[in-house]
Amino acid sequence: MEGVDHLAHERNRSQFDVDAMKIVWAGSRHAFEVSDRMSRLVANDPAFRKDNRAQLPRKELFKNTLRKTAYAWKKIVELKLTEEEAARLRFFVDEPAYTDLHWGMFVPFVKGQGTEEQLQKWLPLAYKMKIIGCYAQTELGHGSNVQGLETTATFDPKTDEFVIHSPTLTSSKWWPGGLGKVSTHAVVFARLITNGQDYGVHGFIVQIRSLEDHTVLPGITIGDIGMKFGNGAYNTMDNGVMHFDHFRIPRNQLLMRFSQVTREGKYVQSDVPRQLVYGTMVYVRKTIVIDASNALSRAVCIATRYSAVRRQFGSQNGVETQVIDYKTQQSRLFPLLASAYAFRFVGEWLEWLYTDVTQRLGASDFSTLPEAHACTAGLKSVTTAATADAIEECRKLCGGHGYLCSSGLPELFAVYVPACTYEGDNVVLLLQVARFLVKTVSQLVSGKKPVGTTAYMGRLQHLMESSCKVQKAEDWLNPSIVLEAFEARSAKMSVECAKRLSKFTNQEEGFQELSPNLVEAAVAHCQLIIVSKFIEKLKGDIPGKGVKEQLQKLCSIYALYTLHKHMGDFLSTSTITPKQASLADDQLRSLYSQVRPNAVALVDAFNYTDHYLGSILGRYDGNVYPNLYNEAWKEPLNDSAVPDGYHEYIRPLLKQQLRNARL
Amino acid sequence: MEGVDHLAHERNRSQFDVDAMKIVWAGSRHAFEVSDRMSRLVANDPAFRKDNRAQLPRKELFKNTLRKTAYAWKKIVELKLTEEEAARLRFFVDEPAYTDLHWGMFVPFVKGQGTEEQLQKWLPLAYKMKIIGCYAQTELGHGSNVQGLETTATFDPKTDEFVIHSPTLTSSKWWPGGLGKVSTHAVVFARLITNGQDYGVHGFIVQIRSLEDHTVLPGITIGDIGMKFGNGAYNTMDNGVMHFDHFRIPRNQLLMRFSQVTREGKYVQSDVPRQLVYGTMVYVRKTIVIDASNALSRAVCIATRYSAVRRQFGSQNGVETQVIDYKTQQSRLFPLLASAYAFRFVGEWLEWLYTDVTQRLGASDFSTLPEAHACTAGLKSVTTAATADAIEECRKLCGGHGYLCSSGLPELFAVYVPACTYEGDNVVLLLQVARFLVKTVSQLVSGKKPVGTTAYMGRLQHLMESSCKVQKAEDWLNPSIVLEAFEARSAKMSVECAKRLSKFTNQEEGFQELSPNLVEAAVAHCQLIIVSKFIEKLKGDIPGKGVKEQLQKLCSIYALYTLHKHMGDFLSTSTITPKQASLADDQLRSLYSQVRPNAVALVDAFNYTDHYLGSILGRYDGNVYPNLYNEAWKEPLNDSAVPDGYHEYIRPLLKQQLRNARL
Repeated sequence: MEGVDHLAHERNRSQFDVDAMKIVWAGSRHAFEVSDRMSRLVANDPAFRKDNRAQLPRKELFKNTLRKTAYAWKKIVELKLTEEEAARLRFFVDEPAYTDLHWGMFVPFVKGQGTEEQLQKWLPLAYKMKIIGCYAQTELGHGSNVQGLETTATFDPKTDEFVIHSPTLTSSKWWPGGLGKVSTHAVVFARLITNGQDYGVHGFIVQIRSLEDHTVLPGITIGDIGMKFGNGAYNTMDNGVMHFDHFRIPRNQLLMRFSQVTREGKYVQSDVPRQLVYGTMVYVRKTIVIDASNALSRAVCIATRYSAVRRQFGSQNGVETQVIDYKTQQSRLFPLLASAYAFRFVGEWLEWLYTDVTQRLGASDFSTLPEAHACTAGLKSVTTAATADAIEECRKLCGGHGYLCSSGLPELFAVYVPACTYEGDNVVLLLQVARFLVKTVSQLVSGKKPVGTTAYMGRLQHLMESSCKVQKAEDWLNPSIVLEAFEARSAKMSVECAKRLSKFTNQEEGFQELSPNLVEAAVAHCQLIIVSKFIEKLKGDIPGKGVKEQLQKLCSIYALYTLHKHMGDFLSTSTITPKQASLADDQLRSLYSQVRPNAVALVDAFNYTDHYLGSILGRYDGNVYPNLYNEAWKEPLNDSAVPDGYHEYIRPLLKQQLRNARL
Repeated sequence: MEGVDHLAHERNRSQFDVDAMKIVWAGSRHAFEVSDRMSRLVANDPAFRKDNRAQLPRKELFKNTLRKTAYAWKKIVELKLTEEEAARLRFFVDEPAYTDLHWGMFVPFVKGQGTEEQLQKWLPLAYKMKIIGCYAQTELGHGSNVQGLETTATFDPKTDEFVIHSPTLTSSKWWPGGLGKVSTHAVVFARLITNGQDYGVHGFIVQIRSLEDHTVLPGITIGDIGMKFGNGAYNTMDNGVMHFDHFRIPRNQLLMRFSQVTREGKYVQSDVPRQLVYGTMVYVRKTIVIDASNALSRAVCIATRYSAVRRQFGSQNGVETQVIDYKTQQSRLFPLLASAYAFRFVGEWLEWLYTDVTQRLGASDFSTLPEAHACTAGLKSVTTAATADAIEECRKLCGGHGYLCSSGLPELFAVYVPACTYEGDNVVLLLQVARFLVKTVSQLVSGKKPVGTTAYMGRLQHLMESSCKVQKAEDWLNPSIVLEAFEARSAKMSVECAKRLSKFTNQEEGFQELSPNLVEAAVAHCQLIIVSKFIEKLKGDIPGKGVKEQLQKLCSIYALYTLHKHMGDFLSTSTITPKQASLADDQLRSLYSQVRPNAVALVDAFNYTDHYLGSILGRYDGNVYPNLYNEAWKEPLNDSAVPDGYHEYIRPLLKQQLRNARL
């Protein structure tokens, strides 16, 4: 990477302290330093090379991932990395692998659902990776609806065992990552049946492979479910299928923190509050929001740098215009840049929320839980949906070359999109949020004070009546005016839904019928949260020359772009007037011009190495074309000038001799 | 495919004659019969098998495509297929290959740009495939801006030759399909230079490979540019890179219909009108619009059938609810179903337009050309953008399983998305449309009568003043009310742009500054065209029980969904009131319920074979889960129970023996 910096002129134009922004992006100096160190460690070690991923057939790709994963673990042990460092290292290795499920799902779930005794038995094994665990919930015929799972775990008092069984084809476990080829253990979700009664879905620890020779244990059938979207991408993961034929496990492998089955087969609930389960959900979903800002910032970094490199049309002194100077490019790209920062800060706030929820749960205070749950569910949905779309938009913003795997964008898209479906389908989650909003509105009459992110509903009367104060374009830079517009739009949409719902005699039927509108109300609420947390962040102290100014501009861009995109909401609720909408557009265009000279520096602030970006178009030095050209020759098809198949299929065709050819 | 039809209950519910609808979809009984015959021919021949595509490494994938392409050509010759039949056969083989460029670009371009003499020399060779041609326009550094191409073709009067040269790295030809490994000839675009003067970009026929041994000719460097988005997908195509080092071709290989260079090196324009070139553009872009309806209908067919198979939540008699019964699913899926039909009919209309334009060009009538050009450019942009988004939305509508390659949707997406970029980047095209609209508006004052799809601008005064007549939800079913709303919205947006533009002293600067708004005005105009052509189609005779009724519902869904999605436009231009917008939503929900029982039959009407769909989720018989399950075991990773790499990378980790492992 030594050499000429083709983007130096862009970097010299920027009007803020990039190093200070790097720390804001990372969250703290400490976080920045850990990330910076780990990302370089990975980038400088050829063992972590990943540029050949698109070319490897599945078996080789997978074997290579096994190698990298083992190598990473060796490094973690050798270098005595802290848990935080190890997590960052795995992050920068940037390859989905069984360890994601082991550390991200198996360990936390056992921790959350196991008794003291169970933790003492299983955690030391898991921490040392003497066992490898996965999380087997989803079934072939059952995804979103966990209560519909079919796998059974029937208690047999004669042997003090549970019999795990897949009664149908559709009850086969399907999708669990790490299951297909690697895991030795799984948390298996199954309907607990004892004394002929079905107590619903519970988690069980099940050993699935021999620790001696890795063969699948008798009574279990396991395989990989096959190729998924994209080259490389998630195909490094062994998502699996598993079918049980009356497989037996000891009774004490039911995770028993919340409920036990006694030796006699009696089902007993413990006195541990079940709400604690929601704490884990908040944890997982806040991680997903932060991941969204990671994926989005990565795509935006590639598209921004390449937009500064690429030139098309126009002409100043015989040189074509940089495409980043076109307003159409800016109006598509800069809102995504702003969204990356917006999602970052709302993710940061969710970190705080999780700590807060955890502390309250510890003190048996469950009062904020429904609100926290709705808010994380909604933010998961809104940020992942926006990020998936944005990655593809960034690919299009790179023109034709974005379609090459070497741009990094196809793989980033393919590896990211499942986030819209896993851990709660986005639409299903938004309906949960909507249910909570409608409930909040309906409880206002009884005087119940809305909390947390719904506190603004307490000012409903005011929001319904007040009108937007914008008179000139610059008024849209005023955070309190923007905030009130988002509050009013969201409140009015929720109220409208509640009003229409009340006309149905059957509430559930009404909810089904109005669900498309309810989803839109939920989105409006979540966008308000994102805007408000960005504004809140800017109220604090943010050191560094020009840093806060840039963030203020990005905050305004995020808000006004969202307003433009959902203008129908704002106008149909009479929150703003058409004239004010038009002024918002004017202000937006002006903000684009202001951000333009800082664009490249704003993506430099993500501090991504070229290894992590994995994109020729997004190279730090902007030296795109020679590298694209050189990369092409690595394609295996170029091993020979005349392609394999010429003699059988091309020559006979050209020579008009196909008639006798064997094809 | 013999066996139980799991979707029979859906098919029995439908309220219209599916066979009659199949003919409407195909365009005519003849077109239906040819398609039906060719699709079965391909589906029943194991040589055209494609279900292993996601698993093949590039070299094997490519070799397999060479085999299929040769086999298809052999069939075409053996069976003496007509040109129409051959084209349909290639369509149903459904695999991008060099022949697409040979037949779709090389042959038409030579035909359009060659002199009589040139046609006599080259076409017989091309028709018999004694030569294989490609289309080498785009360069590494030059895409949209054709006038910026750098390759030179300098006339050397000493030898009566053109010297083709790539003066820079960025002038390397980059992207041409069929170039990388197969083509023997190319139409090469280069700046024609003679007597020291640059006459701009012209097309030349260049032989690039030996017809004897397929080696690349001396003075030319060619390679494949490497992996592109997705598994299988466009990786069956050898998109190539080509660099010239003073390569010489005879003077008579300049395509000379429009301009010649004499033996002495004099550049001479012919008297053939250059506008004829636009005829080809209209042809290519109308094909792209029809392709959009093909790709979209395919995705919608998969998502609709699987939505009828899949059940989640709810419970009627202990069975979960079909997801197609959820309003959220309907509100996302049915507009796409309606869009497929809408794009079909606008494509059909473009066929007519192309014939009309061709006849006029023959009679040297160029009056409708600018309008026809703007209209095809805009429709190309709007339909391809919507289709790309819709395929991904269909994938999400299939839940997690849509992420599997065996769903067919990842590959469909990956193979489709370049349509947004090639043959004119979608945003660049919309700006051309906007330019035309603004010009049309500005010429109204001088009394110039707008023609064709802009004729409504002639009623500008009326449209600016009239108000929407909708008073109750059903009023939105009235085609003339809908049409006027779309006309008013589009006219007002164009007028607003023109008004704002007029405030700039420098028009070009104003155009740049307002380009995001101009793009929106162009989209509004194109959506109006789509709505109006759907309505026009319904005015004609459409035989078959219930067929027209279903199409009327789909037309209303397309219009009202578009209205909802762009509600900001309709409200900010005061075309409709918030109350009317809300009534449109009510009507839309009611239409979803009406279409629901017909949904499966409406996708059956596309008449796609399971081979063409290439999707387990979209199987005609709905027998999804056993087939998903069986498909998984074909994954190469499942060849052995214990994966390759276990002994090196998993066992040492589990046994805590990584320290000494070689990784």
